[in-house]
Amino acid sequence: MAENTNLRIRLPIVCIVLEVILIILFGTLVEYDDHTSAHGWHDNKTKPKDPDYENEFYFRYPSFQDVHVMIFIGFGFLMTFLQRYGFSSVGFNFLIAAFALQWATLMQGFFHGMHHGKIHVGVESMINADFCTGSVLISFGAVLGKTSPVQLLVMAVFEVTLFAVNEFILLSLFGARDAGGSMTIHTFGAYFGLTVTRVLYRQNLEKSKSKNCSVYHSDLFAMIGTIYLWMFWPSFNSAVTAHGDDQHRTALNTYYSLAACTLATYAFSALVSHEGKLDMVHIQNAALAGGVAVGTAGEMMLTPFGSMIVGFLAGTISVLGYKYLSPVLESKLKIQDTCGVHNLHGMPGVLGAVVGIVTAAVASTEAYGNGMEDVFPSIADKSSNAYSQAGMQAVSLGVTLGMALLGGLIVGFILKLPIYGAPPDTQCFEDSIYWEVPGEEEHCNELTHVTTAPEEVEKLNG
Amino acid sequence: MAENTNLRIRLPIVCIVLEVILIILFGTLVEYDDHTSAHGWHDNKTKPKDPDYENEFYFRYPSFQDVHVMIFIGFGFLMTFLQRYGFSSVGFNFLIAAFALQWATLMQGFFHGMHHGKIHVGVESMINADFCTGSVLISFGAVLGKTSPVQLLVMAVFEVTLFAVNEFILLSLFGARDAGGSMTIHTFGAYFGLTVTRVLYRQNLEKSKSKNCSVYHSDLFAMIGTIYLWMFWPSFNSAVTAHGDDQHRTALNTYYSLAACTLATYAFSALVSHEGKLDMVHIQNAALAGGVAVGTAGEMMLTPFGSMIVGFLAGTISVLGYKYLSPVLESKLKIQDTCGVHNLHGMPGVLGAVVGIVTAAVASTEAYGNGMEDVFPSIADKSSNAYSQAGMQAVSLGVTLGMALLGGLIVGFILKLPIYGAPPDTQCFEDSIYWEVPGEEEHCNELTHVTTAPEEVEKLNG
Amino acid sequence: MAENTNLRIRLPIVCIVLEVILIILFGTLVEYDDHTSAHGWHDNKTKPKDPDYENEFYFRYPSFQDVHVMIFIGFGFLMTFLQRYGFSSVGFNFLIAAFALQWATLMQGFFHGMHHGKIHVGVESMINADFCTGSVLISFGAVLGKTSPVQLLVMAVFEVTLFAVNEFILLSLFGARDAGGSMTIHTFGAYFGLTVTRVLYRQNLEKSKSKNCSVYHSDLFAMIGTIYLWMFWPSFNSAVTAHGDDQHRTALNTYYSLAACTLATYAFSALVSHEGKLDMVHIQNAALAGGVAVGTAGEMMLTPFGSMIVGFLAGTISVLGYKYLSPVLESKLKIQDTCGVHNLHGMPGVLGAVVGIVTAAVASTEAYGNGMEDVFPSIADKSSNAYSQAGMQAVSLGVTLGMALLGGLIVGFILKLPIYGAPPDTQCFEDSIYWEVPGEEEHCNELTHVTTAPEEVEKLNG
Repeated sequence: MAENTNLRIRLPIVCIVLEVILIILFGTLVEYDDHTSAHGWHDNKTKPKDPDYENEFYFRYPSFQDVHVMIFIGFGFLMTFLQRYGFSSVGFNFLIAAFALQWATLMQGFFHGMHHGKIHVGVESMINADFCTGSVLISFGAVLGKTSPVQLLVMAVFEVTLFAVNEFILLSLFGARDAGGSMTIHTFGAYFGLTVTRVLYRQNLEKSKSKNCSVYHSDLFAMIGTIYLWMFWPSFNSAVTAHGDDQHRTALNTYYSLAACTLATYAFSALVSHEGKLDMVHIQNAALAGGVAVGTAGEMMLTPFGSMIVGFLAGTISVLGYKYLSPVLESKLKIQDTCGVHNLHGMPGVLGAVVGIVTAAVASTEAYGNGMEDVFPSIADKSSNAYSQAGMQAVSLGVTLGMALLGGLIVGFILKLPIYGAPPDTQCFEDSIYWEVPGEEEHCNELTHVTTAPEEVEKLNG
Repeated sequence: MAENTNLRIRLPIVCIVLEVILIILFGTLVEYDDHTSAHGWHDNKTKPKDPDYENEFYFRYPSFQDVHVMIFIGFGFLMTFLQRYGFSSVGFNFLIAAFALQWATLMQGFFHGMHHGKIHVGVESMINADFCTGSVLISFGAVLGKTSPVQLLVMAVFEVTLFAVNEFILLSLFGARDAGGSMTIHTFGAYFGLTVTRVLYRQNLEKSKSKNCSVYHSDLFAMIGTIYLWMFWPSFNSAVTAHGDDQHRTALNTYYSLAACTLATYAFSALVSHEGKLDMVHIQNAALAGGVAVGTAGEMMLTPFGSMIVGFLAGTISVLGYKYLSPVLESKLKIQDTCGVHNLHGMPGVLGAVVGIVTAAVASTEAYGNGMEDVFPSIADKSSNAYSQAGMQAVSLGVTLGMALLGGLIVGFILKLPIYGAPPDTQCFEDSIYWEVPGEEEHCNELTHVTTAPEEVEKLNG
Repeated sequence: MAENTNLRIRLPIVCIVLEVILIILFGTLVEYDDHTSAHGWHDNKTKPKDPDYENEFYFRYPSFQDVHVMIFIGFGFLMTFLQRYGFSSVGFNFLIAAFALQWATLMQGFFHGMHHGKIHVGVESMINADFCTGSVLISFGAVLGKTSPVQLLVMAVFEVTLFAVNEFILLSLFGARDAGGSMTIHTFGAYFGLTVTRVLYRQNLEKSKSKNCSVYHSDLFAMIGTIYLWMFWPSFNSAVTAHGDDQHRTALNTYYSLAACTLATYAFSALVSHEGKLDMVHIQNAALAGGVAVGTAGEMMLTPFGSMIVGFLAGTISVLGYKYLSPVLESKLKIQDTCGVHNLHGMPGVLGAVVGIVTAAVASTEAYGNGMEDVFPSIADKSSNAYSQAGMQAVSLGVTLGMALLGGLIVGFILKLPIYGAPPDTQCFEDSIYWEVPGEEEHCNELTHVTTAPEEVEKLNG
């Protein structure tokens, strides 16, 4: 029953095959867009004077880097709370994201519309690829500690494709709005991941429970992740909104939502604790729910105080979820959600979709003026109206949940095949399965600066 | 005499009441400005062509995010040097800042001038709110380890208000210039905090002295904070200066001041040490003094070498302060300044004000040309001259000190009331008073990833 | 033979003398450029309307801050993998960089062309100074753990000068292209550092081998450095390229190169390990090789899939180098390369130069159109052609290697003089030589928050 966790053949094969496929597909299908190509930018200029400042790079690159930091530092370090899984948290996050952003470029490019049979890339496709990657990392959070990196890469192959299909249905077919991905990223990623982790339910996970927790300094490493996610979420939600007021407003709405969410998180974390003590799990996770919850409505005229109400609600729901709901999901529904993604991305994602439904329903020309076109193009060109738009938002939520649950089910069973070198129930949340791990006070065997201490590894594997 | 430190009722009540008040006030008083509002941006456009690149977002948002990182990562992690107070340092920094930036938006908006009875928000108000928050966090540094989070929130309520009043007096009434807040942020925050910590003097703080220090890895966590503050200070000082050369020059002046400050810091840290060894406290703090010291003059034509002289002076003063002055302030004046904010924000802040006085006094049309209007509008429109401007700078420093000392005194006594759940003298610098704290090697009680280890907590509370 | 490592006189003298010289030279030679100077920006405006958005600040400052983070956080924390050298890694990185960027401003300014006998500074010179500093920090990586900070400052004095000379020869005399410094920064810094470390060969370094390795949490600190370098490398390579498509394309090429590099790194790290386990050294370092390898060609029309091929190659070479080549360089050539810079900067730097040669050779007007002028000005104005340009690239690589090897030899012998307080062979990779170091569980001697624990230090010095 225990699988062979030696990945000496399987991990290289999967990485190399995937990368070769990516390179071939990029070689045949991908080219620079007109803001990235030398002849494309210079030979298509229509203005007589030099308008280099109109290159998309200047509008979006700073926000792209903030999103990038959220994906690689934010998610990566947030998951280092586990006391013996830090290498895997940061390291597998790094690997999956590096793969997923390339695969997402192809999948999203294909669905987004090709130019003469080519996929065009530029800073906007880079941001959208990071968004898709975020969804995969959310699912990673649900299975954290219980999979091999090969399983994660396989999950990413399928999840990225499903994400791109869902995103296409919502944004291109339905004309739904979801700038910060409350539906496409958070709801989808959470419920997909929760379904996968349900299918991969481990009967004897209790045997690893001594490692399914934090120590003092791992909680501090995790706070690095939390704070970066919190600070840069305004960039995340605004990254692909329209130029001008839209990017500006979306960032500001998110900023206020998160501030209010933080106050709610501290309030309820102390309240639900017998001794009134704050719980790092809540601070690390629930304080972020406000960003998720304004993912859809952030670009709308939500108003600052509207954002604050949403954020406060999100933080409250999230803390209560961590305290009361997660244990129930685990004991009754057998969902072993390591990071509690249901409380940070699941419920707040649905809340975000609902907020989007409501805010779309009240869209008015007084509020948006000539800016309606940037936020609700279908209302602006009269092909729809506020109520229909709200209806499409609602249908979108339903479709997303369906895609996530069905997709998670299928992919879960694909990942259940005993071929990936997954760890046994007794060895979850343990870095030394897949990494050469130094001890706490180590002597080096050779003069290089890598150490392997066989007796130490065996002790951990005990 | 020992207060009940169980905050199960008090912290939630304070957080919820404050947030509800904020939401109500935002709902009645706050609206988007014309760069953030959909109709505001689109319907007020005067140019025929699309000038989205003129939205304030593109001029200031990247700098805003750098400031944000300084507030949440910089300050938060700089204070994690304390070996058992990392959760509180990062966590209370997070809480206070999330509250203060909302409250500051209202206070500063009120004083800054309202538009038809409304406070307008946008990236510039977001930056200014973070600036005010910075001042509160400086004061936090003076009382670090000795207060409950409820005390800190109460302190923030009053300090933000006093900050806004002082800022209004200086910038709007006196027409003083203080782009990077040497006076409004650093001098004010430091002397306010020092006065509060004097009022809250603890007779038996020695009983906690085993925790009032760092360990190896906590010093490394603190360096994360230091390096971020150092790198991004150019963005901080330039964030609200005028477009164009002003933002550019202020960033560059700050960059050179900090580089020279670092050289001075290392030099004097080794010099004052018996064995010539560097002291992390100096590197973590004094190396930043150069940023404080060009807060006022950074936007002026200070010249690169002028900036370097100022920075070198600031680093020297700061190290000497940490080594020789802080112990005296403590033993003679009973000022228990945990982070040594007097050496990083107090004295360098005053130095910054003085540098501003001098640089204003020598302002000339040769140096500024048509750029005078952006830096010294009162000199440009002839309502004042260089000497009068310098005089106003000097008066401003005096007013700031007065506000800080008087405000700190009053607020100090408000905070002295034994109602906030403050820790006893024997339990300062200790996370487990307010946080559920895992041990160093921990077993989890349940399958969730939170651990409480009663025997461990009791051992710490010993 | 053992030197006196007490730097109480030497470090202050060197820092103060260097800074005073810098200040004097800045005072006589340096002034603001026209985008930074108040009168320069306002009185030289030719457009009637306000074009503040054309200030160089908005084109380059966000990228500058990303480069700055790479220099101070990226390099600084990447080198904290050493279990007892974290203070020195971050701290000496901080000191050298703060010095080098000032000295580089002068050296590069002198060679770059002066304006009426003055060196002009602005965001572009700030970026270029950070680039030069990066080269010095690469060399630091080769000697990490084996020098005193005084040696490092002396090395920086010479290396910055040699860098500036080499950069001038390549970019100004030869007209070579090297936007991200595969040659000027990485090849130069690596081979210079390797030569220095060869000259400083330590016969008995094995006596320190117990410290020449990582522990669990120091590997996590190092990952902070790695991830920041990886994320921001697109900004690094694009930071000084032409406005518009060039900055955009260079960032995008780098992004894809690094993604492919990561997949290669994980693949080969598992493959070369007996148990198929990943090695943190590879992940921390080799995953970055893709950024180095597109330093030259990144601004060219390399195409996304071209970038991915280069990145994949670079990651492969780098891992194989760490595993098989470094031990040979050490045992056979006596090159004790602490960080393995040959595998991350040396070989990938040469690869980057070769890629630049090839990509230049195939430059065509179809690919570049009117954008040829920004990337290959000598081809655009017909003073050269693609093959000649490729030839110049090749000659440039040779000159760089020559400068690095010869310069490293001379400087190595200068650094071999026993006057700098270098540590003995038994005390390398040890912070407590130059720092006051707290223990793991420490009691403070005084009420300040600095601890010195004599018995702890002596134990380490044992």
